[in-house]
Amino acid sequence: MRTRAAVAVQAGKPLEVMEVNLEGPKAFEVLVEIKATGICHTDEFTLSGADPEGLFPAILGHEGAGVVVEVGPGVTTLKPGDHVIPLYTPECRTCEYCLNPKTNLCQAIRSTQGAGLMPDGSARFSTLDGDPILHYMGTSTFSNFTVVPEIALAKIREDAPFDKVCYIGCGVTTGIGAVINTAKVEIGSKAIVFGLGGIGLNVLQGLRLAGADMIVGVDLNPAKIPMAERFGMTHFVNPAEVEGDLVSYLVDLTKGGADYTFDATGNVNVMRTALEASHKGWGESIIIGVAPAGAEISTRPFQLVTGRNWRGTAFGGARGRTDVPQIVDWYMDGKIEIDPMITHTMPLEDINKGFDLMHAGESIRSVVLY
Amino acid sequence: MRTRAAVAVQAGKPLEVMEVNLEGPKAFEVLVEIKATGICHTDEFTLSGADPEGLFPAILGHEGAGVVVEVGPGVTTLKPGDHVIPLYTPECRTCEYCLNPKTNLCQAIRSTQGAGLMPDGSARFSTLDGDPILHYMGTSTFSNFTVVPEIALAKIREDAPFDKVCYIGCGVTTGIGAVINTAKVEIGSKAIVFGLGGIGLNVLQGLRLAGADMIVGVDLNPAKIPMAERFGMTHFVNPAEVEGDLVSYLVDLTKGGADYTFDATGNVNVMRTALEASHKGWGESIIIGVAPAGAEISTRPFQLVTGRNWRGTAFGGARGRTDVPQIVDWYMDGKIEIDPMITHTMPLEDINKGFDLMHAGESIRSVVLY
Repeated sequence: MRTRAAVAVQAGKPLEVMEVNLEGPKAFEVLVEIKATGICHTDEFTLSGADPEGLFPAILGHEGAGVVVEVGPGVTTLKPGDHVIPLYTPECRTCEYCLNPKTNLCQAIRSTQGAGLMPDGSARFSTLDGDPILHYMGTSTFSNFTVVPEIALAKIREDAPFDKVCYIGCGVTTGIGAVINTAKVEIGSKAIVFGLGGIGLNVLQGLRLAGADMIVGVDLNPAKIPMAERFGMTHFVNPAEVEGDLVSYLVDLTKGGADYTFDATGNVNVMRTALEASHKGWGESIIIGVAPAGAEISTRPFQLVTGRNWRGTAFGGARGRTDVPQIVDWYMDGKIEIDPMITHTMPLEDINKGFDLMHAGESIRSVVLY
Repeated sequence: MRTRAAVAVQAGKPLEVMEVNLEGPKAFEVLVEIKATGICHTDEFTLSGADPEGLFPAILGHEGAGVVVEVGPGVTTLKPGDHVIPLYTPECRTCEYCLNPKTNLCQAIRSTQGAGLMPDGSARFSTLDGDPILHYMGTSTFSNFTVVPEIALAKIREDAPFDKVCYIGCGVTTGIGAVINTAKVEIGSKAIVFGLGGIGLNVLQGLRLAGADMIVGVDLNPAKIPMAERFGMTHFVNPAEVEGDLVSYLVDLTKGGADYTFDATGNVNVMRTALEASHKGWGESIIIGVAPAGAEISTRPFQLVTGRNWRGTAFGGARGRTDVPQIVDWYMDGKIEIDPMITHTMPLEDINKGFDLMHAGESIRSVVLY
């Protein structure tokens, strides 16, 4: 079949919207009509050429929602008409990782996914001239129709609006999951969130959901205060307005350091500040942000020997097929908010405007509606 | 009273054994006759002048065992004749830290202890000329008689031999505790221990006690193999004999990385190797060693984002008054071994020989017998 898609032809160039060929689903694969997709910083990271593992030409996009159109041989858990969210972190429920309760990093299709291919080692997309186009993160939601492995699709309720719950495919789950799956924040905790963008806001609402008492937001841009307060921030700190050492300031503010700190900036210097602003004896610092290629974090080992814990999270520690439907329920039940974070929508033809809005810092999330 | 003590007169000089004055115990303090004390690398670290927090003149020593001689006003949990192990990490059971189950770092007397003083801000030791001599780590076990706060004494059974269980005051508890309190290693785990000195051997026997399946020891000195095997090592790796990248070699050996890795070297480069040799998704790396002043650990944040956990431990995460008596029981019951690690004993007059043996790498532990 043919489908419209925004193709990343090469690094550093705008996406090109065009018709492409799409082969139907092979064994254990599913053809999905994408109804909506968010535009995430990770798409931008790859498109810019900064991602050393980026491959071109490819169809980016990993934050979508849609409807099953057709299933390939052997698919037993999905049928045409099912509403789904594609998962860039699959959940096969049989690999060594899925069977270990300490991780969500299913490795069942890791190598082919990283190479931009379906599990059988081939791509379903091609140009009208027949040249292959690579998949991206196993999802390629910047195509109106896409093929996704069965184990990389979470089935969700049918009354959930695609244009909102697509955001659960990455940002919402990453932020909330970092709090509830990775950090396992307890009621009454004190927390600091560095970076109040799309991920940071979801960390804030995760902390509110978990019952944190003190939720400090740190950002250089005070324009982010109203939205951050809406999502649960109780205290705001602008590092540019702090005289002296930021760590000392935050330790004083939290009366000894925060029980949990979260980096949602991707800046390795901020990651260090986050660790050192966590409480001696028991503070945990969670790295969410993706750092530039080659960048390294550092600290004195004494920070760890005196009880701080340095960790990270990918996809919020969520097991997608199990956890994503629950987060959709939380949205539908009003336990979490998504609508105010979807600041812009656009048709596929205008997808590059979504990237422009991101660069300009004008959007929290832009969503493409097919 | 007067007592014999080995005094650290100034940094970088041998200890001087002399008679000193010792005031009796004030409120909530206890006078202890030390019967035996180990000589630990931390004493050496301070004596050498490398410890930026080192103070002189002082009476070092923090790995002792002895008998209560006299108790000060207000002491309710100890009486003359009780056998005790002094604790450089006290356990007051009332401070914010003691009441938090996530840490053992009691802060009740932190500031005075760090300043070489008893909790009332004064020192009990002085020269025969009346000049004050500082305490060290709240214990000063290089003195035949010493004064220690009540909250910094663990009461132990009376049939335990002082010349062996003194080692539980630091090295044994640090190594075993890193495994069972900090890492909480599960039965069947794979582990790697970097550095097979006095701490590393105790990590090995902690892993054996916890039921680890694969216990890899890493050391540049193959002469350490027989003793390491005696304490539970199942595989030995000499980095000097590994061609290519040590991390890759260890990941292959453990089929994906170790569930737990432990640094018992204090070398920040080894700490990085230990982290990166732990398993993607769930590996935990525990820093035990004390790094040189100013040294920093580094890694790419991707190591943490993909599920590795970087932690540290002090005194093996043990709450001394509670946990040390239990470890003494384990020794007396034959669940752990100490005797083979006490390679040398000497009278106080020869204490500098203990430091010489440490420098030469000839001892695992030297113990001074009073």
